[in-house]
Amino acid sequence: MKQIEKLMDYRESVRVVDATLRDGGLVNDFFFTDEFVKALYATNIKAGVDYMEFGYRASREMFDVNEFGKWKFSTDDDIYSIVGDNDTDLKIAIMADVGRCDYKEDIHNASESPVDLVRVATYLHQIPSAIQMIEDAKNKGYEVSCNIMAISTAQEIDIKAALEMICKSPVDVLYIVDSYGSIYPEALARLVTVYSEAADKYGKKLGIHAHNNQALAFANTIEAVGDGVDYLDATYFGMGRGAGNCQIEPLLGLLRNPKYSVYPTLKFNQDFMVPLKDSGVVWGYDLQYLVTGLLNQHPRTAIEFTKNKRTDYAKYYTDMLGMD
Amino acid sequence: MKQIEKLMDYRESVRVVDATLRDGGLVNDFFFTDEFVKALYATNIKAGVDYMEFGYRASREMFDVNEFGKWKFSTDDDIYSIVGDNDTDLKIAIMADVGRCDYKEDIHNASESPVDLVRVATYLHQIPSAIQMIEDAKNKGYEVSCNIMAISTAQEIDIKAALEMICKSPVDVLYIVDSYGSIYPEALARLVTVYSEAADKYGKKLGIHAHNNQALAFANTIEAVGDGVDYLDATYFGMGRGAGNCQIEPLLGLLRNPKYSVYPTLKFNQDFMVPLKDSGVVWGYDLQYLVTGLLNQHPRTAIEFTKNKRTDYAKYYTDMLGMD
Repeated sequence: MKQIEKLMDYRESVRVVDATLRDGGLVNDFFFTDEFVKALYATNIKAGVDYMEFGYRASREMFDVNEFGKWKFSTDDDIYSIVGDNDTDLKIAIMADVGRCDYKEDIHNASESPVDLVRVATYLHQIPSAIQMIEDAKNKGYEVSCNIMAISTAQEIDIKAALEMICKSPVDVLYIVDSYGSIYPEALARLVTVYSEAADKYGKKLGIHAHNNQALAFANTIEAVGDGVDYLDATYFGMGRGAGNCQIEPLLGLLRNPKYSVYPTLKFNQDFMVPLKDSGVVWGYDLQYLVTGLLNQHPRTAIEFTKNKRTDYAKYYTDMLGMD
Repeated sequence: MKQIEKLMDYRESVRVVDATLRDGGLVNDFFFTDEFVKALYATNIKAGVDYMEFGYRASREMFDVNEFGKWKFSTDDDIYSIVGDNDTDLKIAIMADVGRCDYKEDIHNASESPVDLVRVATYLHQIPSAIQMIEDAKNKGYEVSCNIMAISTAQEIDIKAALEMICKSPVDVLYIVDSYGSIYPEALARLVTVYSEAADKYGKKLGIHAHNNQALAFANTIEAVGDGVDYLDATYFGMGRGAGNCQIEPLLGLLRNPKYSVYPTLKFNQDFMVPLKDSGVVWGYDLQYLVTGLLNQHPRTAIEFTKNKRTDYAKYYTDMLGMD
């Protein structure tokens, strides 16, 4: 059992990262209004959130700029148009996917960019490419994190080898990512132990990015922060791909650092997130996402199920079992 | 950290209790169709659920039988009409509230009843009355559990005194009840330690009944079962008062006892729970319930907020703070 004092006190090193635009953008193709994004920025400042992730910096060669909202690409100019010179305590983040970002050209020097943190997202088989991106971003003057995705289908020995490689890079933060929302708190605690061994050896920090397929995103985030993980991803009203992410409202309610405030998150949810949901944008715990979580699968078939407005959950489950 | 083996193996003594009719009945005044209840009964049998709670056995003198569906009263005859002689492994439960049940007259001998388990629900200040009800039910031949409600606002020394009293009664199972959905997993683990001390001393079993105000109902149930709690309350699609309960679908997905099966729960949800929700019956994680959970309050004002179709969550929060 963890010390109960941890629920009463706080750790100065904890950081809350709002990933609403980026992970939430996956369910509305990044079509957020400027009014929404400006209000989100103002809310994050008031709520004491530490980082606001704007979106992907995706390749404009690989992806059609007409098919997506601008936060799929999150150019420095578009971010500047929201944050100005960002004379606040809120830091700005973007995500850069290995193989889907022209980082050499599109990520400029930090001194000429509103961005503070570049989050490199990679699969296990792309680690050398991720390390090149980490080095590039670090040389340009950014804080850099690395999110290794889909680790719930990986062998521990491969994860350890990847961590050893990445830890030798100049990365600042290593993220534990439960891409499929399939990890139980006890299993997460074990993963934290594995990541901590590498992180402690090389002086890196840890982060957690949880999905809600089994209604455990917040619970796994609590588990992680109790185990010493500092960077906590969350989104407003849990908006995110499929079943969504850790909800930022209860997370700020849990953390005892006086800088965090729940009220602004409720106001923003009231004014923007609830209307967004009412307008037909779909995310959150549902049975099709539970199925992919239980089966430790990518949510893509569940997303398709949702898109087609299917409700034959039981048949979907047996179809998924049949593909095993 | 708990042993990871616990996620791979199972404990024979674990029991899953479906509380859909009883806790779910609180959001539709117990108006379930017979078709619904018969299908739920059949589903529980197929899914390997251990107990099905039918509803309250509320006093027909105190409550108007015209204002509620029949599962507010759950007479033996009404239960017989669903389960016949119940020649199955599924046991039948009802709940009897201290002060709201004419138990001397309305709870008959177990030999003349379809009910196996009487669940006595009590507040801390009603323990002597609860003990009388426990003794009455035990003398009539039932298994008996006791749910002490609203413990998150109680002092530990009072809980310990209550446990000592109840443990001297012939009760079989003591339930840890997070009525307000305000307890974090770490705090729950500490409560389990307190309850276990009393339970072990007197040879009683433990149960958990969690609410989802902070999106932690399933997580707290996982915490409890990992700490040795055997009786696990859950409901289909999480239906229950306010933010609802632990969802039975992921719970059966977690438990490794081969008798449990997820498929029937998905089929029932598809055929009955999703249509019920679509028909306008409201439950589940929402911001007003998060507020009462965060503030460790009874959800009654949040239920009122929901009933009035209010969406001014931020004002509701400041109003609640103002009442502190």
